[in-house]
Amino acid sequence: MSDSPSAAAEIMDGVYSALRAHGYADLTMQDIADECSKSKSLLHYHYDTKEDLLVAFLEYIISDSEDRIAARADDPPVDRLVQFVGWFVFAPDEADREAFHIALLELRTQGPFNERIREQLARSDRLLRGTVADILADGIEAGVFRDVDVEETAALLVATLDGARTRQITLAGAERDAEGEGYTREVAEAALRRIVGPLLADGVELPPLDAAIDALRLDADEPGSDAAADRTE
Amino acid sequence: MSDSPSAAAEIMDGVYSALRAHGYADLTMQDIADECSKSKSLLHYHYDTKEDLLVAFLEYIISDSEDRIAARADDPPVDRLVQFVGWFVFAPDEADREAFHIALLELRTQGPFNERIREQLARSDRLLRGTVADILADGIEAGVFRDVDVEETAALLVATLDGARTRQITLAGAERDAEGEGYTREVAEAALRRIVGPLLADGVELPPLDAAIDALRLDADEPGSDAAADRTE
Repeated sequence: MSDSPSAAAEIMDGVYSALRAHGYADLTMQDIADECSKSKSLLHYHYDTKEDLLVAFLEYIISDSEDRIAARADDPPVDRLVQFVGWFVFAPDEADREAFHIALLELRTQGPFNERIREQLARSDRLLRGTVADILADGIEAGVFRDVDVEETAALLVATLDGARTRQITLAGAERDAEGEGYTREVAEAALRRIVGPLLADGVELPPLDAAIDALRLDADEPGSDAAADRTE
Repeated sequence: MSDSPSAAAEIMDGVYSALRAHGYADLTMQDIADECSKSKSLLHYHYDTKEDLLVAFLEYIISDSEDRIAARADDPPVDRLVQFVGWFVFAPDEADREAFHIALLELRTQGPFNERIREQLARSDRLLRGTVADILADGIEAGVFRDVDVEETAALLVATLDGARTRQITLAGAERDAEGEGYTREVAEAALRRIVGPLLADGVELPPLDAAIDALRLDADEPGSDAAADRTE
């Protein structure tokens, strides 16, 4: 974008709001224009097609995730791992965030048919798995994790947390009526206990999940981080 | 359906083929009619709307999964658990099956907006989690599994396997170029080693994953099991 960074950020916020409100399949450039109070012709000036804009949006939120992960790179490895797990937990009052992730899930179903979307999904996958692998490698070096296959553990954790999220958001309503806390919370705790727990060196304890989630939510509430309040897949 | 069971099965096969070929979002009754060599008016005679037909299809494949699971209820618990894990593994030559699951994933994104679809998703979720919980409970009683929280383990395993499947099918192409075996295979093995392994009582070993997958594929090749060759979510 040749405009000021804030104009670009406003458009990205508009995409975020429009995806939440309309989903992906039926989304129009007009919906996005309405959400960011820009004209449709201005959007088309910057982005030829809706696909161009959505690919730019994916690039934007993945880059934002990279920045957020990098900003925590000096935290202790056990803290970073619990933060990573906490990132996938949906609190009961996060209906907007669930709506956004339903739209992202729709977008992900386009992966097999759209190379540019697939490239972004693959980039996100490398980021997520690479982040867990880095945390584990740092922790092994620091002596807080046992020596473990970091790539395997990363794939296992990312699949587990992604699956819990998909199940929670697609079952929303049915799920919530039946259970108190939802899939993401239940599985995050189980993953910490059953997958991460056995990796800890003797005497090392994990910080509480709730504190990590609270810190993430404060982080997401910072001004200007609206579209960036979340990560993509 | 008031027709013969085989007419109903033919229509369900048609839905299966049409979802694979066209996906969910753009699917029409005509696409389904073409795939099962019925007239569109015949389909509408039985199913008022496309939604009615798709809900019936979900009911059909979930019931089929129930039957398949019930048919194995007398197998040893460790065998059943490895079969369950193997069910989620996509071999490299299963592009058709991946295409079907992409369409199912699209359908799942309608869960929050469509109560009838959500009811079927919730039923599938209860089936999957209940199956793992039953296997574990049987195995604990038989002394082959340690005493473990069966509900927590079931939620963890189902989320893990579902997440691996979603990542494999949405990254198809990008994923396959980069790696030999794909997400589902990698995560299935990791889940057996890292989640299931610690549950085994002393001296108990898991049967090999490959043998379980081969048996499942033979099963799916039986005549008349075309639409039923897979399970839904």
